[in-house]
Order: sequence, then C-alpha cells, then structure tokens
Amino acid sequence: MSESATRITPGNALRPEDIADRVHDGTAKPSDEVAEYALWLGDDALILAQRLGHWISRAPELEEDVALGNIALDQLGHARSFLSYAGGAWGKSEDDLAYFRDEPQFRSAHLVEQPNGDFAVTIARQFVLSHYQFELYRRLLDSADPMLAAIAAKAVKEVDYHRDHSSQWMLRLALGTDESRRRVEAAVKLIWPYLAELFEDHPLVDALPGIAVRPSELRPAFDAVTGAVLAEAQLEIPSVPSASGGGRNGRHSEHLGYLLAEMQVLARQHPGASW
Amino acid sequence: MSESATRITPGNALRPEDIADRVHDGTAKPSDEVAEYALWLGDDALILAQRLGHWISRAPELEEDVALGNIALDQLGHARSFLSYAGGAWGKSEDDLAYFRDEPQFRSAHLVEQPNGDFAVTIARQFVLSHYQFELYRRLLDSADPMLAAIAAKAVKEVDYHRDHSSQWMLRLALGTDESRRRVEAAVKLIWPYLAELFEDHPLVDALPGIAVRPSELRPAFDAVTGAVLAEAQLEIPSVPSASGGGRNGRHSEHLGYLLAEMQVLARQHPGASW
Repeated sequence: MSESATRITPGNALRPEDIADRVHDGTAKPSDEVAEYALWLGDDALILAQRLGHWISRAPELEEDVALGNIALDQLGHARSFLSYAGGAWGKSEDDLAYFRDEPQFRSAHLVEQPNGDFAVTIARQFVLSHYQFELYRRLLDSADPMLAAIAAKAVKEVDYHRDHSSQWMLRLALGTDESRRRVEAAVKLIWPYLAELFEDHPLVDALPGIAVRPSELRPAFDAVTGAVLAEAQLEIPSVPSASGGGRNGRHSEHLGYLLAEMQVLARQHPGASW
Repeated sequence: MSESATRITPGNALRPEDIADRVHDGTAKPSDEVAEYALWLGDDALILAQRLGHWISRAPELEEDVALGNIALDQLGHARSFLSYAGGAWGKSEDDLAYFRDEPQFRSAHLVEQPNGDFAVTIARQFVLSHYQFELYRRLLDSADPMLAAIAAKAVKEVDYHRDHSSQWMLRLALGTDESRRRVEAAVKLIWPYLAELFEDHPLVDALPGIAVRPSELRPAFDAVTGAVLAEAQLEIPSVPSASGGGRNGRHSEHLGYLLAEMQVLARQHPGASW
C-alpha cells in the first residue's frame, strides 16, 4: 500500500461508493479490528437515522421536519461510509451489513435504539449523541487509519451543525413554556442513563492505539460543553443510575429487535434480488 | 403592488420564510382562489413527503434510503412554500395549515394518500406523481401569478430528478427478476385508478385563467412520456376503472385520516406552544 494511495484529502467528497472501490482494489482494506471499530461508528449512525426519519412531517413545525430529516440523511451517509469500509474486511457490502446481520451482530450503543418518545426525548437523545459524535470525530481526524480519518473529516462538519441544532432546542424547550420545560426535564432523566455506555473503554479500542479513540478521553470535553448548555438552560444533570449497556458487545434492549424487523424486512424478503 | 416588487427571479433561493415575509408586507398576497389552488399543490407535496419519509433506512438499499429521503425533503420544501403562500390569504402560517386543518380541508389528490405498500407500490406512485408534477410545474413557470411561478421554478428542477429516479426504478423492477416484475405489475394495477383525478378539470382552475394550469392539458404530455417508459419496461397500461377522486373538494379515502392523526398529533398536543 503506497503512501500516495492511502492519502485521502479530508474535505473532498468521499462517497460510500468510493470507499467500496478502495476496499475492493486493496488500497484501503481494514483489519478485522478496524472493521469492528467502524461498525461501532456506522451502527450508531444507522440506527439513529432510522429513528429520526420517522419525524419527516411529524415534528411540531414544518421547518423542524426538514431539519430532522436532513440530520437523518447526514447520519445515514456516515453510516454508509463506515459500513462500506467495515465490510471490506469480510467481503461484505454496506447493504449486507445493514440488512443481513442479526441483532447480536449490531454494535450500536443503547442510546440510539431508544424510542423517539415525544419531541423532547428525541432532542435530548440528539443532544447527547451529537456532542459525543463531535468529540469523537474531531479526534478521529488524527487517526493513523487514513480512511477513518477521511470519513470523520466529512462527518465532523455535519455533526457540528447537529450539536448546534439540538443545543438550541434544549434551550428553547427548557426556557419556553411550563409544559415544554416539564417535558425536557423528563426527557433528560430518561436519556441520561444511556450516556455512560458511550464513554466506557473497551478491549477493542485498547487494541487499536493511534487508530481508535479511547471513549473515556472524550468525557471531559463532552461534560464541559454539554454542561455549559445545561447551565444556560437551567437544567440539572439528573442523578440517575447508568443503564447496563453492552451494545458494543452485541447486547441490546428489546427496542433494537423491533427496529431491525422494520428496517430489514424488505431487503430480506428477496435476499440477493436486485430490489 | 409595484412591478419590481412582484418580480421574483426564478432560480434564486426562495425560502418559505421569504414567502411568508412577502405575504406579510403585502407584496405577494394571494387571492382566495390562488390560495386555494396553492393548497392543491402544497397538500399533494406535504402528504407525499410524509409517506416517503417512512423509507429512511427501510428501502432495499441504503443508497435508495438516501434517495427517497432526499425526495421526501424536496417535496416537504415545496409544500412549505405553497402553504406559506396560501396562508397569506387567510392570515395563517404554513404550520397552521399543515397541522391545524381537519381532513375535509385538505386538498390533496387520493394518489398521494395511498399507503406505501411494498417498494414497487411506492415507486409506481412516485412515477405517476413526479411526471404529473413535472408537467404541471413546467407550465406554471408562465403563470401570471409571480409567486406561483417562482415556487414552480425551484420545484421543477428537483421534480425533474424525481421523475428520472422513479422511471429508472420502473425499468429496473420490470426488467429485473420474475418477482420484481410481478410486483411492479401489481403495483401499476393498484396505482393506476388514482391517475384520472390528477387530470380532472375543476371550477377553481376555470376561475384562474392564465394563473392556474388546466389539469386536462397536462394529460397528453404525461401519457407520451410515461408511455415511453412503460413501453421500454414492457409494461402494459392496465385497464382499470378510475377511483372516485374528490380530493380537491376535500373528500378523501380512509387513509388520509390515519396519516393526519400521526402527522398532527404533536403540534396539536400543545396548540400555540413554541414546541
């Protein structure tokens, strides 16, 4: 693998199809461990995209429908890139990985499989995830794996908008009406137990020094930035026990099974068919 | 209303917010009849967007998820523009019209409220609607109403892509596997009864000469272009009786009620609240 072949200019349009090409011609084939790590990132984005797509025409404002729809499509784009890359380790396509894995093979965090709930729950989930993703992708720019760095370079710009969007909504709900404040307080209590899993260290990351980012390293920056928003919103960080987690090892809540059933039914009805 | 104030350069970014501003400052206030006509166009796009949003992460390919999601957001954008303009006649916002009208006040055609069905049904519905919209918006460029012309100028470029997308899928499904052909044949039979309503003339359009486009005038071009695709796909135009229609007068099938219930529940839970 020559140096020039692995140099991927961040900011250039890097489409999932390009990644698949690079994987096939051998210029960017991930190791099993890198592929497994790419699944973490891709599955988080894929499951979140499925959840957010629901809001098109169902948010409280048409403008917000468009915003959440665009965020869903951004996340889906990131998922396609990470899954295209991951698949290179095992001769699988993005579609193979999205539609033909069973629940225990998914590596997403429990946070993203949580149901949309009311709009405040969706926003609280988005607030946590987008700030987490921003800190993660920002550090992945320096990854020794050039493809992970290139995907992160494209994704971080979009996620920067996502975190601004959800932060603005947290403020608007918390400082809005009594009802919107009551709802966002309840949403934060509901979502916060799923935060700890995102920052848990894991043997896979330990096996990828310089390539993957240690989750625990993201926590101080995450706490500082989200803490400032919560303070401005006059929202307290709830004292709630952490949920059990285990998503990175394929242990999921009951929600993921239902979500996958809907997501995968069409592709599985006709495996291998062109539709 | 001065000539310069009504000149809207087609192709310029014309956001729904700009339209609302123009409506409020009185430089582009529609008559009741024009507003009613704008509801036809906006409601078709709004209801279709809601149906298509469902496919994000549920299509047979991730690439296709992205395509249908983008089409849903395009349609939602057109809906916002048409509804923002329509609302100017009655002091209503786009959100008032989307979330606080009851079923008999919606002016969408029966075609767009048809359930997604399988992927072939979604594509057949999209094939009919996007070719219809293309012919309609193309002619609206010459409308004596400058705002309708400006909205159509933006929309027609996007719908041109939508009709190409659905035409390519019609060919791919019809000339694909036995199963995909069987399904697209069944889908065409299911969708074709809703075609006639789109091309039915109506007193409202008769009352808007030079402003609205007579639906029956669109039919020859629609038949020629879609007929060529169907011929290439070796699909016969089915002999099926037309459905009853009536959407432009507020008579809808049972499907719209369920769709509106989902679409409107959040906004209606807290009418007037900021969320």
